[in-house]
Amino acid sequence: MEKPTLPKGTRDFGPAVMAKRQFIFENIKKVFQKYGFQPLETPAMENLSTLTGKYGEEGDQLLFKILNSGDFLKDVDNTKLEARSSKQIAFDISEKGLRYDLTVPFARYVVMNRNEVSFPFKRYQIQPVWRADRPQKGRYREFYQCDADVVGTDSLICEAEIILMIKEVFKAIGITDYTIKINHRGILSGIAEHVKAENETSLFVAIDKLDKIGEEGVKNELRGKGFDEKSLTTLFHILNVKGSLTNKIAFLAATLDTTQHGMKGLRDLQEVSNILKSYGATDEHVEFDIALARGLSYYTGCIFEVKINNVSIGSVSGGGRYDNLTKAFGDKENLSGVGFSFGVDRIYDAMEELQLFPKDAQISSKVLVCHFDDESFHYGLGVLTKLRAAGIASEIYPDQSKLKKQLDFANKKSIPYTIVIGSEEVKSGELAIKNMEKGEQEKLTIDQIISKL
Amino acid sequence: MEKPTLPKGTRDFGPAVMAKRQFIFENIKKVFQKYGFQPLETPAMENLSTLTGKYGEEGDQLLFKILNSGDFLKDVDNTKLEARSSKQIAFDISEKGLRYDLTVPFARYVVMNRNEVSFPFKRYQIQPVWRADRPQKGRYREFYQCDADVVGTDSLICEAEIILMIKEVFKAIGITDYTIKINHRGILSGIAEHVKAENETSLFVAIDKLDKIGEEGVKNELRGKGFDEKSLTTLFHILNVKGSLTNKIAFLAATLDTTQHGMKGLRDLQEVSNILKSYGATDEHVEFDIALARGLSYYTGCIFEVKINNVSIGSVSGGGRYDNLTKAFGDKENLSGVGFSFGVDRIYDAMEELQLFPKDAQISSKVLVCHFDDESFHYGLGVLTKLRAAGIASEIYPDQSKLKKQLDFANKKSIPYTIVIGSEEVKSGELAIKNMEKGEQEKLTIDQIISKL
Repeated sequence: MEKPTLPKGTRDFGPAVMAKRQFIFENIKKVFQKYGFQPLETPAMENLSTLTGKYGEEGDQLLFKILNSGDFLKDVDNTKLEARSSKQIAFDISEKGLRYDLTVPFARYVVMNRNEVSFPFKRYQIQPVWRADRPQKGRYREFYQCDADVVGTDSLICEAEIILMIKEVFKAIGITDYTIKINHRGILSGIAEHVKAENETSLFVAIDKLDKIGEEGVKNELRGKGFDEKSLTTLFHILNVKGSLTNKIAFLAATLDTTQHGMKGLRDLQEVSNILKSYGATDEHVEFDIALARGLSYYTGCIFEVKINNVSIGSVSGGGRYDNLTKAFGDKENLSGVGFSFGVDRIYDAMEELQLFPKDAQISSKVLVCHFDDESFHYGLGVLTKLRAAGIASEIYPDQSKLKKQLDFANKKSIPYTIVIGSEEVKSGELAIKNMEKGEQEKLTIDQIISKL
Repeated sequence: MEKPTLPKGTRDFGPAVMAKRQFIFENIKKVFQKYGFQPLETPAMENLSTLTGKYGEEGDQLLFKILNSGDFLKDVDNTKLEARSSKQIAFDISEKGLRYDLTVPFARYVVMNRNEVSFPFKRYQIQPVWRADRPQKGRYREFYQCDADVVGTDSLICEAEIILMIKEVFKAIGITDYTIKINHRGILSGIAEHVKAENETSLFVAIDKLDKIGEEGVKNELRGKGFDEKSLTTLFHILNVKGSLTNKIAFLAATLDTTQHGMKGLRDLQEVSNILKSYGATDEHVEFDIALARGLSYYTGCIFEVKINNVSIGSVSGGGRYDNLTKAFGDKENLSGVGFSFGVDRIYDAMEELQLFPKDAQISSKVLVCHFDDESFHYGLGVLTKLRAAGIASEIYPDQSKLKKQLDFANKKSIPYTIVIGSEEVKSGELAIKNMEKGEQEKLTIDQIISKL
């Protein structure tokens, strides 16, 4: 029999990795809850009618589809079957798919529970998503998303609080060198209007690559799309503005003063900045990046992207405001929403690269009780009960084995303390507790041990 | 456009339900970790070759299969396609399936990571599983399992600790009236030998129904399987033994003294009871149930089942020892393991029925800051910053709305306190804090509010 394997692009998370992942998840959760966000979980499977058409044609092809149960071929059209058209048959033999992101299920939830939800609704959701992408470094077929969204208000305090939450999470997990890039779709539209772009989308797509392909690259791409040199000069005159948020806003306000969307975007950014001040927060880490466009076309207001500096991985979080969340589900009344998502896998990789995980980010017993014989084993069980009653995670080596084997086990499992019990200890009640890292040992009673730990 | 729906047998968990579920999960996790168990997570998708053949024929049919990406029909045999044989084609067009339980993925993990894992390996795993079962009350197509297993030791302290952990979890979540039924496969084999049963399995299957169909029902079923009256009388002479664990063991030791498996089982149970005593624990809640058989045939030693008494739902946890965990994956060396699983959905339902959830089992802000105008809104942001800096989950109503609407929002979201800020409060710094349940209001400074909360 062959050794079992994992499906491509999926991973097991063993104890050491889990401890580090939980460190990130717990800190994100704590911050979300402190800001009044409430948890939601949706099923892994959604009806394909819920999922398809929401992520573009490419997205539809990356959906994992679930084969219908039972005799799934029964009602399939003969002609389709003879034509062997996988694409056409797929939807006849499968009606469910795996969640592709957390936003569409959230929108589906809001539409289905319109009457029970109190708006503005602040929800967070931490669950895996699945994409039939080609696996490569840092890209998996199963990965977690951590989303927080507010729907039912267009107040810009939501945008300000997104910035505050990102800062607070990064502080808690020890990331200090990062940039929160912010821009506004209205400003991009204003620029498009100002440079007389005929095709907004081509402009945004090209601008979004500025980081990767540089000024000349973007210009070449836009030339190919029919932009003339005058427009390009005007465009880069704007994109190259340097300075603080306030400086950039002032410059753009003078340039885009005739564009309605542009001026709305600038007012919004200014208001976000004002709100941050009222919170007692600063613009530190926040950069108004006029070239930030974000691929997804459903954003309508502020957009965000967070980069950890000096690591190979780029963006670890992103989001923005959208005004049409529930429209795709036939909702008459449009709900304005704003949200963002932490990419935990990328944060994890960055933290490994920067060696930021605290040493004690491991989930393991604090004490291993070791023993020499049946008497000390049974005595050790009483010791264990006392340790656990004091809330100290602990375990006893379950088999009668040589002491060396028991201590090796503690080392392998990164258990920091061992208590070795022999007949002498059983008699005196004075137990030898050993700090496994320092190698130091002392004799203490169980009560002394508990207060020491 | 039609209103979206959820796939049959799946559920959303909104904030109120999530809070209660997290209360259960957190308590289970805390106890698992206190006993030295470490977390593991495996992917939702496994290769079908990993899953099939592990759950019997019925189980294979309940696996959710994932349609291969791309042109999945390309290599399908023409004859199969023309025959429209769903069953045969299924494995040609899908090579992955959704996890059906947590035990098989765990076994797969152990086999794949043999050299990195330090044995005895204590792992816990809390993840959803999927079964294409017919949905009905209390039975879902997606549900969580909470498993804890130890592999690599046959020490009976594992069995004793399972009992201790169940007791500790139930104490933490407030369940007081329950029974931990324990039995041993060896004892069942001993009984089968003693009554000269030709087919052990028929006997176990029938015995397992004693609770549901009563003595006469079991007897009738066994008569149909060829058991004679003498065997049945002997059998029920054994099954009807009353008394404490010690009494039952003494009786059975006299009856099964010639059966090797039976005596091994009795010694094991006695040793578990002795170990519990050394832990300072009692047999309270533990019942030696000679009729407990548990359906799954892979158990080889002690078996457990936990029932919450006086609720409509029966068993909420079960488990046992198995000796062939990794054999199905071609492992040469057999690892003995023992584990159990909490059924969180059933525990949830039982706790609702018994009204055991603590009132504060909700994840919501503790304070809502309310405001009258732009000035008090911006002042409120500073108040919010101080509350959050003190670790108090809090939020501000994000829009300019009538006070009544803001207070209604607090009530709907079960936020226990509101702070109402008007121009007077901005001037004096004395804020009106209101206990929403009692309706009481007092004027305090922000520092006084923080120490009060």
